[in-house]
Amino acid sequence: MIEFELIHEDKQTRARAGVIKTPHGDIETPVFMPVGTKATVKTMTPGELVDIGAQIILGNTYHLYLRPGHDLIREAGGLHKFMSWDKPILTDSGGFQVFSLSEMRKITDEGVEFRSVIDGSSHFFTPEKVIEIEEAIGADIIMVLDECVAYPADKADAERAVMRTYEWAKRSKAALKSDQALFGIVQGATYEDLRKRSAELTVELDFPGYAIGGLSVGEPHSKMFEILDYTVPVLPRDKPRYVMGLGNPTSLVGAVSQGIDMFDCVLPTRIARNGTALTSEGKLNLRNAKFAKDFTPLDPAHDCYVCKNYSRAYLRHLAQSDEILGARLLTWHNLAYLFDVMRGARQAILEDRYAHFRDEYLAGHDMEFGTI
Amino acid sequence: MIEFELIHEDKQTRARAGVIKTPHGDIETPVFMPVGTKATVKTMTPGELVDIGAQIILGNTYHLYLRPGHDLIREAGGLHKFMSWDKPILTDSGGFQVFSLSEMRKITDEGVEFRSVIDGSSHFFTPEKVIEIEEAIGADIIMVLDECVAYPADKADAERAVMRTYEWAKRSKAALKSDQALFGIVQGATYEDLRKRSAELTVELDFPGYAIGGLSVGEPHSKMFEILDYTVPVLPRDKPRYVMGLGNPTSLVGAVSQGIDMFDCVLPTRIARNGTALTSEGKLNLRNAKFAKDFTPLDPAHDCYVCKNYSRAYLRHLAQSDEILGARLLTWHNLAYLFDVMRGARQAILEDRYAHFRDEYLAGHDMEFGTI
Repeated sequence: MIEFELIHEDKQTRARAGVIKTPHGDIETPVFMPVGTKATVKTMTPGELVDIGAQIILGNTYHLYLRPGHDLIREAGGLHKFMSWDKPILTDSGGFQVFSLSEMRKITDEGVEFRSVIDGSSHFFTPEKVIEIEEAIGADIIMVLDECVAYPADKADAERAVMRTYEWAKRSKAALKSDQALFGIVQGATYEDLRKRSAELTVELDFPGYAIGGLSVGEPHSKMFEILDYTVPVLPRDKPRYVMGLGNPTSLVGAVSQGIDMFDCVLPTRIARNGTALTSEGKLNLRNAKFAKDFTPLDPAHDCYVCKNYSRAYLRHLAQSDEILGARLLTWHNLAYLFDVMRGARQAILEDRYAHFRDEYLAGHDMEFGTI
Repeated sequence: MIEFELIHEDKQTRARAGVIKTPHGDIETPVFMPVGTKATVKTMTPGELVDIGAQIILGNTYHLYLRPGHDLIREAGGLHKFMSWDKPILTDSGGFQVFSLSEMRKITDEGVEFRSVIDGSSHFFTPEKVIEIEEAIGADIIMVLDECVAYPADKADAERAVMRTYEWAKRSKAALKSDQALFGIVQGATYEDLRKRSAELTVELDFPGYAIGGLSVGEPHSKMFEILDYTVPVLPRDKPRYVMGLGNPTSLVGAVSQGIDMFDCVLPTRIARNGTALTSEGKLNLRNAKFAKDFTPLDPAHDCYVCKNYSRAYLRHLAQSDEILGARLLTWHNLAYLFDVMRGARQAILEDRYAHFRDEYLAGHDMEFGTI
């Protein structure tokens, strides 16, 4: 189980600083959780993640179920032991991947049938099956199976997904045999009444934490903040709040202001492998020819290992040559950068100056980081 | 410039322990040099290389000339600075790549014309041009342009290559303006008289070190050792001896016994990226299904970071999933393993028990490591 301690609420915004206590250690919030899709945060060792400040990582139930399989992970002693990571882990439910990756899928009230991205084989996820898989994986925090709708969604579809997600949440809770912390998920697309209803229903079930799902699926940024604005107040003050799939720094800084505590996204690691860095000057695409003879540090305002040791010209050369070290160094920097932004946010909250922190950060980053 | 200090000669074999003093630090021999083809030892940071015992790395002139280009490296302050590696570097001449990678090439006494593997553009290497490139790159030890012949080679072709390599060595020496240590290269294919003649001619030119080229190009192991057996005695005792392109541990252990001090090869790093580990039990291909639930360490007899923290099952999962971390961890282990073999060899030489060390190692590794 987990415990959430609310340390401080910013006086001018809804931003809050807290601590989530888990069996594998404490997590200071607000927190960004890097995604370790297939039992590895791509390119990084566990030790490196700890060095740059990772407090918790996310594992993808969908991918781990397909390979190496949850039975194998159980036999290995759980995901922590399998991948040699002894800090907290959160697993998603696999629902998002079923909806986004599988071409062939069939959803009913019972569950969702889908084909494997690896070999096309047929599989069936029910809320109970997902709990069984997540129990085998053994993360500290686990998520209920939910139904995501695409953006934009018909109101009827969105409402059906809200009710199905609610029914599935009840079944997930009933199925849980372990003492892992099971979080509920709020759906409702872009409809205020549905979002509020979904939040109320989910909160009624009394989970140790709440996620807001179905965001960052293509809607405009302003729409996402509008949704957070009316949904967050329905969630209890004393439980952690998590927006799934958010990873660009400006969105994080904005959502923290709305009272969100937890985030995850593949953005920092994925764009790194494409040669793009998140910096205090905005996004830099190092494949751009203008960096060929730029012997300055990646981000002169940042003091991570990468910024202290390598030039833009060298990082560009690695990217152009598709060298693994290039993907490593940019992943390293991008995560370190995001963790630093979150640390800065937390400090600002503790000092009741979050509005200033947010406004200054957003003013300095009018360059669109973009969603993914 | 460099200085070679012969520390000890084994009493029963030709094996020797020495120190090569370079402007970037000392190298204890015998030494294996990992290959940093394109300004990076694939997957590894400089710090990690130092941690596992790398003393010198090799850069490929051919690749660096094509990308990012030697002019850019000169502008960056040399390869050491460009890639953030402050220990010794050796660059090859690019000759081997011109012969092995370029489909279109035309060799004359003047030099060799070839097409770029990147864009098919036409380039011309002369001994003088190669020295100019190697001076721009700025390695501590640099190699003359030589002519490699394929295996098997006609005697006439082999003889022509010996004489051309000799003429090119003279021109290289005359062209050298820096104080980098320029090594000569012995050719001669599988012909004893040609090998000896090539060695004599090259030694006459008085280089600070000598390489034996044209080995590990497809000839049987026994043939290679036969060649070393009659070639090495022609080389001076007080200069380092280098066999280019040798990387399997059994070959290294054998060649050290013949009096060789330096080795390089892409083998440990390349097979790592294919999922293969060099271990005290021989080569392990982790893609093999038998490792799926093998939760034992990669090499229980080895104590590197990888063997201490990860199971074969996990490393297999990473290999099967084409995860970068898998390539990283196997590269890490393979290099650490080879460095450890070389350290063990050196210690055995210092204690006059190299024959025993060699015989025990070869008996324990009758499993063929294979050449590449």
